[in-house]
Amino acid sequence: MITERLAALRKEMAKRNISIYVVPTADFHESEYVGEHFKARKFITGFTGSAGTAVITMEEAGLWTDGRYFVQAEKQLQGSTVTLYRMGEEGVPTVNEFIEQKLKEGGTIGFDGRVVNTRWGLQLKEIAKKKNGALYVEEDLIDLIWKDRPALAKTPMFILEEKYSGKSTKTKLEELRAAMEKEGADTHILTSLYDIAWLLNVRGNDIECVPVVLSFLLLTKTDCTWFLQEEILTDEIRAYLNENHIKTRPYEEVYAAAAELPADAKVLLDRACVNYRICNNLKDSITIVDGANPTELMKAIKNPVEVDNTRAAHVKDGVAFTKFMYWLKQNIGKEKITEISASDYLEKCRREQEGLIELSFNTISAYGPNAAMMHYSATPESDAELKPEGFLLVDSGGHYYEGTTDITRTIALGPITDEMRLHFTTVCRSNLNLANAKFLYGCSGLNLDILSRGPLWQMGIDYKCGTGHGVGYLLNVHEGPNGFRWRVVPERHDNGTLEEGMITTDEPGVYLEGKYGIRTENELVCHKAEKNEYGQFMEFENITYAPIDLDAIDPDEMTGTERKLLNDYHKKVYETISPYLTAEETEWLKKYTRAI
Amino acid sequence: MITERLAALRKEMAKRNISIYVVPTADFHESEYVGEHFKARKFITGFTGSAGTAVITMEEAGLWTDGRYFVQAEKQLQGSTVTLYRMGEEGVPTVNEFIEQKLKEGGTIGFDGRVVNTRWGLQLKEIAKKKNGALYVEEDLIDLIWKDRPALAKTPMFILEEKYSGKSTKTKLEELRAAMEKEGADTHILTSLYDIAWLLNVRGNDIECVPVVLSFLLLTKTDCTWFLQEEILTDEIRAYLNENHIKTRPYEEVYAAAAELPADAKVLLDRACVNYRICNNLKDSITIVDGANPTELMKAIKNPVEVDNTRAAHVKDGVAFTKFMYWLKQNIGKEKITEISASDYLEKCRREQEGLIELSFNTISAYGPNAAMMHYSATPESDAELKPEGFLLVDSGGHYYEGTTDITRTIALGPITDEMRLHFTTVCRSNLNLANAKFLYGCSGLNLDILSRGPLWQMGIDYKCGTGHGVGYLLNVHEGPNGFRWRVVPERHDNGTLEEGMITTDEPGVYLEGKYGIRTENELVCHKAEKNEYGQFMEFENITYAPIDLDAIDPDEMTGTERKLLNDYHKKVYETISPYLTAEETEWLKKYTRAI
Repeated sequence: MITERLAALRKEMAKRNISIYVVPTADFHESEYVGEHFKARKFITGFTGSAGTAVITMEEAGLWTDGRYFVQAEKQLQGSTVTLYRMGEEGVPTVNEFIEQKLKEGGTIGFDGRVVNTRWGLQLKEIAKKKNGALYVEEDLIDLIWKDRPALAKTPMFILEEKYSGKSTKTKLEELRAAMEKEGADTHILTSLYDIAWLLNVRGNDIECVPVVLSFLLLTKTDCTWFLQEEILTDEIRAYLNENHIKTRPYEEVYAAAAELPADAKVLLDRACVNYRICNNLKDSITIVDGANPTELMKAIKNPVEVDNTRAAHVKDGVAFTKFMYWLKQNIGKEKITEISASDYLEKCRREQEGLIELSFNTISAYGPNAAMMHYSATPESDAELKPEGFLLVDSGGHYYEGTTDITRTIALGPITDEMRLHFTTVCRSNLNLANAKFLYGCSGLNLDILSRGPLWQMGIDYKCGTGHGVGYLLNVHEGPNGFRWRVVPERHDNGTLEEGMITTDEPGVYLEGKYGIRTENELVCHKAEKNEYGQFMEFENITYAPIDLDAIDPDEMTGTERKLLNDYHKKVYETISPYLTAEETEWLKKYTRAI
Repeated sequence: MITERLAALRKEMAKRNISIYVVPTADFHESEYVGEHFKARKFITGFTGSAGTAVITMEEAGLWTDGRYFVQAEKQLQGSTVTLYRMGEEGVPTVNEFIEQKLKEGGTIGFDGRVVNTRWGLQLKEIAKKKNGALYVEEDLIDLIWKDRPALAKTPMFILEEKYSGKSTKTKLEELRAAMEKEGADTHILTSLYDIAWLLNVRGNDIECVPVVLSFLLLTKTDCTWFLQEEILTDEIRAYLNENHIKTRPYEEVYAAAAELPADAKVLLDRACVNYRICNNLKDSITIVDGANPTELMKAIKNPVEVDNTRAAHVKDGVAFTKFMYWLKQNIGKEKITEISASDYLEKCRREQEGLIELSFNTISAYGPNAAMMHYSATPESDAELKPEGFLLVDSGGHYYEGTTDITRTIALGPITDEMRLHFTTVCRSNLNLANAKFLYGCSGLNLDILSRGPLWQMGIDYKCGTGHGVGYLLNVHEGPNGFRWRVVPERHDNGTLEEGMITTDEPGVYLEGKYGIRTENELVCHKAEKNEYGQFMEFENITYAPIDLDAIDPDEMTGTERKLLNDYHKKVYETISPYLTAEETEWLKKYTRAI
């Protein structure tokens, strides 16, 4: 099937004299996850992971993806003639290096200008120029060969009340205009769906598990224009927009609007986010102030209302997870449970919580060797039956009106080996060690990452991903500019200074291909600690409340300090969660949060 | 005295219509420490620290220095009318910001173009341009008012044999030319005294404690020209230079030589190091390839001969320090010992070691509150008498043919308070924790710094400096591009990837103004550990051999793991050092390296 699609694509490429065609995983907004309409890279390669780029020449096809997906991609690409390029490994060319190597003198690089960001588009233009070649960007070739392509999403939206958002749209627009002015800009093009949703205090459902509204925003000192599929506007929302002086225009008119901007405009935009076609439509005389969208930092620093709400969301989520864990420990070996039926049960527990809107991502419920694939997603074919032994890894979360959650627990379903116990205990130490950090203001995740990764590095083990990511507020579960990572990955944009109010996950792990996977993930809110002659100290508050499975802990592999951290954490879990449990569940939780 | 000098300088400034005059701490080579001739900033401000910049306007004079020197500078600037600007503290303008604020429209910024590096010079030029002003750089105004200025140093030099350097000059020149070609350059201007000494395998004594030869080097594909005070060349050295095809020219002719370079030359040079006048003399049509000198990384990665030699130097140094420590512990309270007499005794112990050339820096011997000044240097006036109580901090090192050492120990001379014991123990934990790091190849000091700083941050304490610096091989005791620091300080250039063979100090500390100072410093050699599916792991070898004073350790404040690290370290110290001690000293060392 993939080989046929590639053949069809190459036919279209040949007609247009395109030598290399690039198909990224992207919508028109540089969203991390994309709606069904945009899954062109999956269509052309068969690889279903959330991240990856396909590059197709007349002779070859390649897929670039990162460490999270090596195992999965290798499986899914079998028989497709698509070669896997393992990003970040020694000797593996980057996408751009590959394109530069393969592009013949005078050759043409093709891509849909709407799904490639401006920064990358300009790099490709530069490569084409070096070879005296050209770009071909005005057509979406995948669209020509994808007969049953799903339509653009067009879901209902709702207004997020101020008791949830903590700040009115009016105030947010004022603050954004002030930031724009500070940057010397008179116009701002905002295309990030997360930032638009945050700014306008609206939420939709246009990407699975990401409550956004497909749209673009154009802001000047006097006007705010929202480009969206206007059919979804209700009277209530029209009134709300009027009240906030926000005009609307059709979604696809943003390209014309860009072309209409005055020749002397000073436009603040993020070339790493705004798509190539929009920038390409701007008059040459326009001054571009390239930089991160000011809303990125504004939305990452949760306001006190958002922090309080998120804490409340985590209590609900912790109750749901604890009930699930109790059920699993009670019933394993007694009734048939599979990866999918387990995640269904967990979803049921979550849906019983008041204020749950939807899951914040597709639950990863991975048993045994499946958990070695970091972002495994069980399918009816792969759905493993859980046995009363080994580890089940469950990574899940919910969107509540009170915020978004993301939690991972690895649960021993019965006997485990000594090696598994040692690894589980080390992952727990790693997790606690980072959560316990105290540091001077100015640190980024780069400074702190080793607190979590260090205990595993001591054993000669690494996990091929960051230690943690920022979390949106009823938005994308992955959010910049905060994160924990030991090496800067510029395109991830997650090495910002850790600010009070930022929420970041803490999720070290061990992944042994063909054996098992372990991950323990909590979310941490950054707070100010004392300020003294040395500066402003910062610290974290752990806001995830669920037991870390004591059945898999070896207390002898922990220091006294580490045991105290675990005991303190478990005490807090018990105190926070037990009021919402049945007597049996409370009894069970008491045992599973006992001091060791 | 300082006010008179400032008045004289302002008179010269007025004559030339200079509004702001800049006096950095620099020679013509951007050396960290400078010869007596170059101590212009000390002359004009009275501040004797090794780092700092003076900026003089007609109304004000300011001194910028970093956290190491705040306490000392505040003392020394009293009554001078010079204001201290504490670099890096909140709200303190940088030198450039200050100059930009103060420079009037059409004003002139003056400095000696030979003591300001090109990068900074261009920034000042840019500031002048913004104000429609000018630069005045061809004259050294300090020279006009400094009547008894010391002459340029002109000390004898010697050739470092290959059994010490581990690599011939011929090979080094070949490798440097290859690097030059790789950068697309046909010419290389090298002005770093350390890099020249390393490249030519020569050593001199033109800066106190830094065995370099004042000189510049101009390398093309065919020629190597060394600009130096040719009077110091002996027949032996002339023969050696001939053999290596190295020509010489007088020191000051480098400026003319720069002006003579062909109009189409492609010159590799480090704008952050090469002085402004040299670059200003290059024809405008010349292409400058700006980047770190390739020799910087080459010399930082010690070759196996250098690593073996350095280990041997540390054994000698450890023996000297241990003998000193034994003497101090035996005699304190029995005879009169002062900061200076103690450091004299330590110097005597060092000089008894075979192969010692000189001290690698002026010993810091600081008792009680004096040790809170990180870079305190005892003078006859300040020289405190040691009492049988509290802490003596001794930071010292030697230049041996086998390499350069740098070690700090803090020694309890008698009773100490609980707070002192807790801080000493924490500093020890910090030191051991970093030394014990294991990490993936690709990490820089930025990733690891928190291993050392973390235990102190947990107590709300910080030290206002890096945790460690690279160490030269019979060269400057501070060397890039390796170091440990939590925040990038671009001008320090010490955030390079940690490579096998790099040697870096590990020196956390606690400094309580008016009370005491604690620092424990060892040197670490970076080695490869295992390589597996996760990548190349790296680890450190501790090559400093001297006891960490157990009299000041509280074992209850350490984890079992930490006690084991200390015990293992002390075991290694005992085994390495005891063969070179007397029976009494050995007995003493046994006690002071006992397992706790």
